[in-house]
Amino acid sequence: MEQLLKDAERIRSLEIQGATNIALSAIDFLSNYAKRLKCENMEIGLENLYKARDILIETRPTEPAMKNGLKFIISKLEEEKDHCDANYISDYIEKYKTQYYDMLQYSKKKIAEIGARRIPSSNNKYVVMTHCHSSLVTAILLEAKNQGKNFKVINTETQPRLQGRKTAKKLLDAGIEITHIVDSAMRWAVRHFQVDLIIIGADSITSEGTIINKIGSRLLALVAHEEHVPFYVASPLLKYNPETNLGILEIIEMRDPKEIWKNPPKGIKILNPAFETVSRRYIDGLITEAGIFASSHVSNYFAKLYPEMV
Amino acid sequence: MEQLLKDAERIRSLEIQGATNIALSAIDFLSNYAKRLKCENMEIGLENLYKARDILIETRPTEPAMKNGLKFIISKLEEEKDHCDANYISDYIEKYKTQYYDMLQYSKKKIAEIGARRIPSSNNKYVVMTHCHSSLVTAILLEAKNQGKNFKVINTETQPRLQGRKTAKKLLDAGIEITHIVDSAMRWAVRHFQVDLIIIGADSITSEGTIINKIGSRLLALVAHEEHVPFYVASPLLKYNPETNLGILEIIEMRDPKEIWKNPPKGIKILNPAFETVSRRYIDGLITEAGIFASSHVSNYFAKLYPEMV
Amino acid sequence: MEQLLKDAERIRSLEIQGATNIALSAIDFLSNYAKRLKCENMEIGLENLYKARDILIETRPTEPAMKNGLKFIISKLEEEKDHCDANYISDYIEKYKTQYYDMLQYSKKKIAEIGARRIPSSNNKYVVMTHCHSSLVTAILLEAKNQGKNFKVINTETQPRLQGRKTAKKLLDAGIEITHIVDSAMRWAVRHFQVDLIIIGADSITSEGTIINKIGSRLLALVAHEEHVPFYVASPLLKYNPETNLGILEIIEMRDPKEIWKNPPKGIKILNPAFETVSRRYIDGLITEAGIFASSHVSNYFAKLYPEMV
Amino acid sequence: MEQLLKDAERIRSLEIQGATNIALSAIDFLSNYAKRLKCENMEIGLENLYKARDILIETRPTEPAMKNGLKFIISKLEEEKDHCDANYISDYIEKYKTQYYDMLQYSKKKIAEIGARRIPSSNNKYVVMTHCHSSLVTAILLEAKNQGKNFKVINTETQPRLQGRKTAKKLLDAGIEITHIVDSAMRWAVRHFQVDLIIIGADSITSEGTIINKIGSRLLALVAHEEHVPFYVASPLLKYNPETNLGILEIIEMRDPKEIWKNPPKGIKILNPAFETVSRRYIDGLITEAGIFASSHVSNYFAKLYPEMV
Amino acid sequence: MEQLLKDAERIRSLEIQGATNIALSAIDFLSNYAKRLKCENMEIGLENLYKARDILIETRPTEPAMKNGLKFIISKLEEEKDHCDANYISDYIEKYKTQYYDMLQYSKKKIAEIGARRIPSSNNKYVVMTHCHSSLVTAILLEAKNQGKNFKVINTETQPRLQGRKTAKKLLDAGIEITHIVDSAMRWAVRHFQVDLIIIGADSITSEGTIINKIGSRLLALVAHEEHVPFYVASPLLKYNPETNLGILEIIEMRDPKEIWKNPPKGIKILNPAFETVSRRYIDGLITEAGIFASSHVSNYFAKLYPEMV
Amino acid sequence: MEQLLKDAERIRSLEIQGATNIALSAIDFLSNYAKRLKCENMEIGLENLYKARDILIETRPTEPAMKNGLKFIISKLEEEKDHCDANYISDYIEKYKTQYYDMLQYSKKKIAEIGARRIPSSNNKYVVMTHCHSSLVTAILLEAKNQGKNFKVINTETQPRLQGRKTAKKLLDAGIEITHIVDSAMRWAVRHFQVDLIIIGADSITSEGTIINKIGSRLLALVAHEEHVPFYVASPLLKYNPETNLGILEIIEMRDPKEIWKNPPKGIKILNPAFETVSRRYIDGLITEAGIFASSHVSNYFAKLYPEMV
Repeated sequence: MEQLLKDAERIRSLEIQGATNIALSAIDFLSNYAKRLKCENMEIGLENLYKARDILIETRPTEPAMKNGLKFIISKLEEEKDHCDANYISDYIEKYKTQYYDMLQYSKKKIAEIGARRIPSSNNKYVVMTHCHSSLVTAILLEAKNQGKNFKVINTETQPRLQGRKTAKKLLDAGIEITHIVDSAMRWAVRHFQVDLIIIGADSITSEGTIINKIGSRLLALVAHEEHVPFYVASPLLKYNPETNLGILEIIEMRDPKEIWKNPPKGIKILNPAFETVSRRYIDGLITEAGIFASSHVSNYFAKLYPEMV
Repeated sequence: MEQLLKDAERIRSLEIQGATNIALSAIDFLSNYAKRLKCENMEIGLENLYKARDILIETRPTEPAMKNGLKFIISKLEEEKDHCDANYISDYIEKYKTQYYDMLQYSKKKIAEIGARRIPSSNNKYVVMTHCHSSLVTAILLEAKNQGKNFKVINTETQPRLQGRKTAKKLLDAGIEITHIVDSAMRWAVRHFQVDLIIIGADSITSEGTIINKIGSRLLALVAHEEHVPFYVASPLLKYNPETNLGILEIIEMRDPKEIWKNPPKGIKILNPAFETVSRRYIDGLITEAGIFASSHVSNYFAKLYPEMV
Repeated sequence: MEQLLKDAERIRSLEIQGATNIALSAIDFLSNYAKRLKCENMEIGLENLYKARDILIETRPTEPAMKNGLKFIISKLEEEKDHCDANYISDYIEKYKTQYYDMLQYSKKKIAEIGARRIPSSNNKYVVMTHCHSSLVTAILLEAKNQGKNFKVINTETQPRLQGRKTAKKLLDAGIEITHIVDSAMRWAVRHFQVDLIIIGADSITSEGTIINKIGSRLLALVAHEEHVPFYVASPLLKYNPETNLGILEIIEMRDPKEIWKNPPKGIKILNPAFETVSRRYIDGLITEAGIFASSHVSNYFAKLYPEMV
Repeated sequence: MEQLLKDAERIRSLEIQGATNIALSAIDFLSNYAKRLKCENMEIGLENLYKARDILIETRPTEPAMKNGLKFIISKLEEEKDHCDANYISDYIEKYKTQYYDMLQYSKKKIAEIGARRIPSSNNKYVVMTHCHSSLVTAILLEAKNQGKNFKVINTETQPRLQGRKTAKKLLDAGIEITHIVDSAMRWAVRHFQVDLIIIGADSITSEGTIINKIGSRLLALVAHEEHVPFYVASPLLKYNPETNLGILEIIEMRDPKEIWKNPPKGIKILNPAFETVSRRYIDGLITEAGIFASSHVSNYFAKLYPEMV
Repeated sequence: MEQLLKDAERIRSLEIQGATNIALSAIDFLSNYAKRLKCENMEIGLENLYKARDILIETRPTEPAMKNGLKFIISKLEEEKDHCDANYISDYIEKYKTQYYDMLQYSKKKIAEIGARRIPSSNNKYVVMTHCHSSLVTAILLEAKNQGKNFKVINTETQPRLQGRKTAKKLLDAGIEITHIVDSAMRWAVRHFQVDLIIIGADSITSEGTIINKIGSRLLALVAHEEHVPFYVASPLLKYNPETNLGILEIIEMRDPKEIWKNPPKGIKILNPAFETVSRRYIDGLITEAGIFASSHVSNYFAKLYPEMV
Repeated sequence: MEQLLKDAERIRSLEIQGATNIALSAIDFLSNYAKRLKCENMEIGLENLYKARDILIETRPTEPAMKNGLKFIISKLEEEKDHCDANYISDYIEKYKTQYYDMLQYSKKKIAEIGARRIPSSNNKYVVMTHCHSSLVTAILLEAKNQGKNFKVINTETQPRLQGRKTAKKLLDAGIEITHIVDSAMRWAVRHFQVDLIIIGADSITSEGTIINKIGSRLLALVAHEEHVPFYVASPLLKYNPETNLGILEIIEMRDPKEIWKNPPKGIKILNPAFETVSRRYIDGLITEAGIFASSHVSNYFAKLYPEMV
């Protein structure tokens, strides 16, 4: 258990980052923990795993992909508990970890495919805008480029950690025309370039269809609303947090003020919220592995695709 | 004339900055130019000054305070041309420069006084938000502090030149409680702190009541609109640009991309617009030396206060 | 049948009030009616009960909880009709009445639990507003108080029958800080107290996600919309009226004008509508026993939880 | 001075009510005070009157008609101070009081005339709605009735003091068809009766074009906005408060909580705000003695008609 | 195959029109094609039918009723392929064509029934508005008339092909009071007649709840939004296009410019788009054979009713 | 007088059309009438002219340019009445008619000049949209073309009289790229072509800043509002109707139903409104001979430029 607590700490401290990485690492930690266990039978094994799961989940309560992954593994073990050997729990976990990883990969591929269709083949250069860095949005844009679509991209630098530069470089490498701006120029850019489509990623989705994403996302949604530009969110359903259905509130993480101002005069309070919410009213469609639909439907589709995780 | 062109260049190249500075320097350059002139009579003197004025105005077409200042000086000279000595034009200019300077100072003092009244005396801490650095907004807040009002201020850092830090420091020095955020957190902050009032400055005002101010100002206006927070603009009427009434479009200045990203990969286009417009629909009131009113009324009040500059 | 008609009249005349009371009384009346019946077999028994059900439903067409309760009882009897004794119909009814009552109680408890999570634990006093009296909203607030949450409540008196006083007293008794206002001050209050959250109850929900609640509810929804305050409706799914899916229009009940003005001058027409509709566009979430979601999803969740009543 | 303070108290304590009454009484008190004064000359007389004026104004800072009236009287005295006798100050005051009264009466008559034109002659019954009691709105409706226009009126009772009953009775006496509702039914009524036009009065108007009127007025404005019904405010320009131009904030008066709930359980806080603001965005037109126009223009028209009071 | 291509051409060239006609004709063409085939077994038969289906679908990619019909037929054949004779494929097709036709007829009847309930029985004449010609909207209105409801209809002529005249005549024949206007008078009419309800048809529905209908439909939706008039769309679920869920974009068909201007001066470009989209935000409810609900739910209901076509 | 009545009839019957034509013809008729008069003195002459003026104005109450023209002529005669000869009234009228005509011409030229500045010089083709035919909008576009600006125009056909064709031809002749659509495609076009600017004309302007223009104008304003496209109205101030300030309602003219449908089946009611109103909320700016400003300011500018006609 001690080791598990250390492992959990690595997640809590942000040493491990990125939704997929975190999910897979947590499953690894669970698997390792299982390996160290000596259980007489599956009942006892599961009892122990429940505790481990809760410890891991609690490290990052706003990481649905990890939570859903752990729930998936455990539910699979529960299903099989009558005909499996307590000594090999960690092997089973490995097996389902692979399955879960494949689900994540499949959803990414599918989203790229479906999302790319939203960019039309046209003679005029189509203009897409994004904010921060989302591997899914990047995947959609690369897929559209592969299909020979004619478009350019506007992206924001995304202070204070400048993830927008990562997006800019990846698209540049794929030969996509890219224009880079400061965050506060987002409204100016939407109008100036007559942006046709906005796509961002999501860190989490709630039962009401609200998404949680990088600070500045709601600002961009407001701009989309004012300028009447279609606003889409690309996200695997595995980022849906089923507990929001039970009224659990998502908490917005505060990061280190030093990211914003290294040595401020003493007395100036600095706040560095990492995320903000975008309510369903501003979202035209959610692009998921199950298709494109209004974001309030996420719980239906989640229940259909992933009954083990509800 | 050669010297005047050199002087003008100093304004064009942004060596000289700040609306008041630019206005006073331009008048100085005009005065120096007049000193070097040898005119037989006022008619000839004025002919030359007209040309000099046009050269100076053209350096920064979006600096109404300079344009209005030069127009003020010239109109005064025209009024007096029958009973004044062509040899002393530059003395007259100096005299009216002082007058113009006094007008600018007076308007600033008046705006601080009027604007401070918008912040109520209350037991609960009142929350004011601003963006970028405006000496007028700072003056209003300092005046309110002097009057012992109970409030705190939220301000944005204002990428890429971080003028927000200047604001934060000035307010801190005056003992005002200040919270500093990145630009993209502005919506989050308005909601999180339940902001009561937003005040920003203006670089220019048009006949339709549109204001032009630092990039990000329109974003903040959108947030104010969504969250229904009163949104005010503090500006001397001398920033009204009468030519907009004639359909002249204001041009948004583009700054050096290096301000945003020093060494970007080759191929990434970077745009650095300095300003953006906020239409009258988002502005609850304009705080001027003539009082507080809907921004579309600016031309009426300008004509009443400054008939020489219409 | 005669007795049943008398019983039905007690419901129609508003002698019996409150959604749960009405539902349980109607089931009692059905049960008593069944007791008085002498049926050879279940077929005949059911034939008679269908008629009785229709008579009862028709007394208050806008009471879904009663309608759904009667449908639940009958559907259960239909399921069991092959292996049950026509002489004991009323015993079966009693059994299912208890089940239905338990369902109602369970949903209430669940809603209190889920709804209370919407009120955050915070240092600053959180401000909740409500209108009229809803036992569910009260249950949510009491549950939140039990959990030690730090909040206060604003409520309206709710003319002409002043149900708001009942709400105020109940909350006061639980030690919750309460501020009471006239109905027309609701906008002023939302702004003045910077209300964080609005929760009201519902008398009925339609397939389009419209709710029907006490007159004034839509006004409060308009205020929430203007001031961008989250607006929630707490209601058991059993208040969903499945017939609205078939285009049946809900009718707004008119009450006695004397409630408003006892002795008005002759000639003044007085109208006293009891309810009004709030469309899904104004509702951020429906708080039900099945979780929190966009109100347009009510028919999905209803079908999942209560397949017998669709 | 002692007597003046007593007189002032009668205004402060609401013993004297109604904008016109208050204005005329205040002028009377000023006149009586002047009568009691023994002044050597007009300078001294005016010095004393300035103090008296300030005392009177301060009793009800939100009564522009009184403030403007006192300013009118004093400005007239100032104009004449060189050729008038300090012993007869009170006679002069009486003379200008009559003038001011005539101005008020004239504006009322003019507003009735202009406002009545907004109600078209039509075959279908036109539907007008109002809130609370405004003698100007009543005057408009009576004038329209006199002209034989075909319309009916919906009005609210206006808790807690039920001024709506006064409106209902006055219109009934004039033979106008009237329907009376509770305040919270205002949205329902606008839709149910397909209201064509809403007109309310105003207690005060600010330089930004905001009006201040009976609590509930903003709610009705929200309804008008949602249902796209033209929303007009009838008010003499004499209710414009020129000091708002200088940033002076209007204060919302709190009345006795007993008006709402006579004997509430101890611990329930009750707030009884008398007025609320309606911003210019919700007002289609201001109906004044100078015509109908957007409310933000009030200071222009005021300055044109009443230069003595600016 | 040659004959099939000719048949397909008849659909592509718009020789065959109307969603139901097109669907039935396409099935006939498939059936005839099957008749001409000589297949050894069902596998080979189906292989051929797949190709034929794709050819037919491709003629009018925006005709979901045809696409869904062909998918229905083929899925039925697939289900039965093990126990049916390859020589009689066309007989099976005929059988399922009848089934599909019945489904279409049933849905039309059901929609008329459900939709008619939206028109209340009232003493005042209720005002319904529609645009273009939709056989479903007509069916709803005729059903309401049969039920003796008291209403009148406003309809637009619908340039350039004047389908509104067809609507006007059909309603006139049924004794319904009808007022006919030009398309650009639609806003004027909604206000002038105080329209109570707007219902239009749909050519296609997407997974996001967007409908596609005759050009001008979105304009009418904007008017409904401004004037707050309920806006409904009547459509069988069979017009849902499941491929939109996969990101496939619907293409707006351009018709012959000659329909607009027969002999325009050379150089004037004329565009004649036949359809436009209306997003779910403007649609209060979708009236379908499965009931009335928010249009974003169409994929749920489609999957429930027509699992073979998902 | 008889002849005058005949002349007036020519205006009433629409024989004479176009705001300028109507104004000049009415002045001619006044002049001819004056010629036929034998007046002893100017007083009597004016008495007669007042009557004639009222007769002429009454023929087309919604033609402010005529009304203002007649008022201008008469006010000039009144000014000069003391030193002019009653025998030559008609000569004076001719003189002022020329003046009025020059004023109209001047305003047109000025508007073209000012309006053309709203179209920027740019590399990308700028997209302007208009509706119906306005000689002022055409003048603006021709002026912009003359200045070598790079733009194209979208215009509507404007049923039922197809004035859009006239616009299309005039612009085509000037070498401007033009795309022509049906009226109901206006929203589609604004989005499809990413329209940058909309300009329409006006038939009349009211004191509240409402304009009255060809039916369909408000629809286009709604589209501009939804898509956030700047919406301007080009109009001489002489189309301001000062009587609207007094509450006089403008009446919307109904034209011959035959324009819409020549031989409709008996029983179909056809309404053909010629105009509709656009409220100031939808108008970004009014382009007039006095500059560009918010339309609610029209009465100020009118009073400044044309004091004789107030």
